[in-house]
Amino acid sequence: MDALPPRNIRLIIEYDGTPYVGWQTQENGPSIQAALEEALTDLTGEELVLHVAGRTDAGVHALGQVASFITRSRVPSTKFAPALNSLLPFEISVHRSDEVPADFDARHSARGKRYRYRVYLGPQPAALDATRAWYVKRPLDLEAMRAAASHLIGEHDFESFRSAQCDAAHARRNMVAITIDAAPRPPFGTYVDIVFQANAFCRHMCRILAGTLVEVGLARRTVASIDETLAGRSRALAGITAPAHGLTLLEVFYPGLTTVP
Amino acid sequence: MDALPPRNIRLIIEYDGTPYVGWQTQENGPSIQAALEEALTDLTGEELVLHVAGRTDAGVHALGQVASFITRSRVPSTKFAPALNSLLPFEISVHRSDEVPADFDARHSARGKRYRYRVYLGPQPAALDATRAWYVKRPLDLEAMRAAASHLIGEHDFESFRSAQCDAAHARRNMVAITIDAAPRPPFGTYVDIVFQANAFCRHMCRILAGTLVEVGLARRTVASIDETLAGRSRALAGITAPAHGLTLLEVFYPGLTTVP
Repeated sequence: MDALPPRNIRLIIEYDGTPYVGWQTQENGPSIQAALEEALTDLTGEELVLHVAGRTDAGVHALGQVASFITRSRVPSTKFAPALNSLLPFEISVHRSDEVPADFDARHSARGKRYRYRVYLGPQPAALDATRAWYVKRPLDLEAMRAAASHLIGEHDFESFRSAQCDAAHARRNMVAITIDAAPRPPFGTYVDIVFQANAFCRHMCRILAGTLVEVGLARRTVASIDETLAGRSRALAGITAPAHGLTLLEVFYPGLTTVP
Repeated sequence: MDALPPRNIRLIIEYDGTPYVGWQTQENGPSIQAALEEALTDLTGEELVLHVAGRTDAGVHALGQVASFITRSRVPSTKFAPALNSLLPFEISVHRSDEVPADFDARHSARGKRYRYRVYLGPQPAALDATRAWYVKRPLDLEAMRAAASHLIGEHDFESFRSAQCDAAHARRNMVAITIDAAPRPPFGTYVDIVFQANAFCRHMCRILAGTLVEVGLARRTVASIDETLAGRSRALAGITAPAHGLTLLEVFYPGLTTVP
């Protein structure tokens, strides 16, 4: 069977990060990348390399992760999604597959991302959110959190808000928006969703920002401390790294390409 | 240590039914009842029997399940919830514990229940709802489903809508309300939530009703067929039993006792 000319295919992927060591293939357990690459090899007979928008940590979820790969197979571009779903474990699903220009790269072409950090507030933990929201027992002062978040908007050096293991050259990022919304979560509690939109994120940045904003909400840290933390450029000045399982990658933005309908 | 006088304690319980064989203790795997009774025995040293409002099937979830038990232990009534949560697997949590009158029985005192059956509609399956919603690929005619549901309201003999294994003496039940609502489920799909409120339910009743209403929504069954199905009093006349994992017990109603704040 003659190979076809190469096509560049983009996938929009949802996953429950709970049973995985994270996006990236590692020695210590199953990864989302390995599960997808294995399914793609089963489907096409090719050894493919997936380029991904956001290398999520172990336990982090995604509703709109984006990955791309080059194929010479005969699988029609839009048929990768259903074909992969028939091969993947139920914790991973592909919402859409389509052909994109040859120069598209899910990682390098991305111009922005949106992440949601979800907190569950209630008198006791909520079993159905045990792996999907950070359980915080004490009430949060949302107005203080929003005031603190406003100091993070715009272009800043987020050096204090990234992991020591972050491999990016620098931590200058443009934070476009942070919204903090509460919604009842029957029967007893409340969700507090912190949604971050930026041109890009450093390693653990959303989790450290969420941990710091929750400390403001608990009055363990002042609104004024945010400017000092940004200026001090030291991880030690920021709050804790909030647990991975509260974080979900919602959407990735590309110039001239919509990811959702 | 002298035993105290007996107290009747009510628990409000949430669980992810995925890893369990159902509420009831069985030979073939872990049950929610057994996990709770074991934690109660660890806590009190007593052999306790839990009475439960709804014996949910394997894979069915609960946000507001109610169970009750008699104890002579020294554990303060409201402290059962946090103490049990420290012992239970994360898939089960107790929202509240409180003392109720001696004649209260979680099962026999219940005067009504509310269940939600969740359908996920979308072009492809949604990984984060794989164990929480029934994936239906084709669009549903919600107006037809609502029209069909209206024929189920009131007191009827639901013989056609119960499992052959149902052990209730008869199937006369009073259906108080059925609501059918659609909500966007980003990035691509829609939730269709069918909420049933009745004085009581037979075995598999919500799942057979949901399966039948979805068949109406898919135009595989007419609105007029609902009256014929009720009148025919035969399981063979109703639709399929919808998958367990779409069903969640939301709330149980008791005279003079609120279960949620």
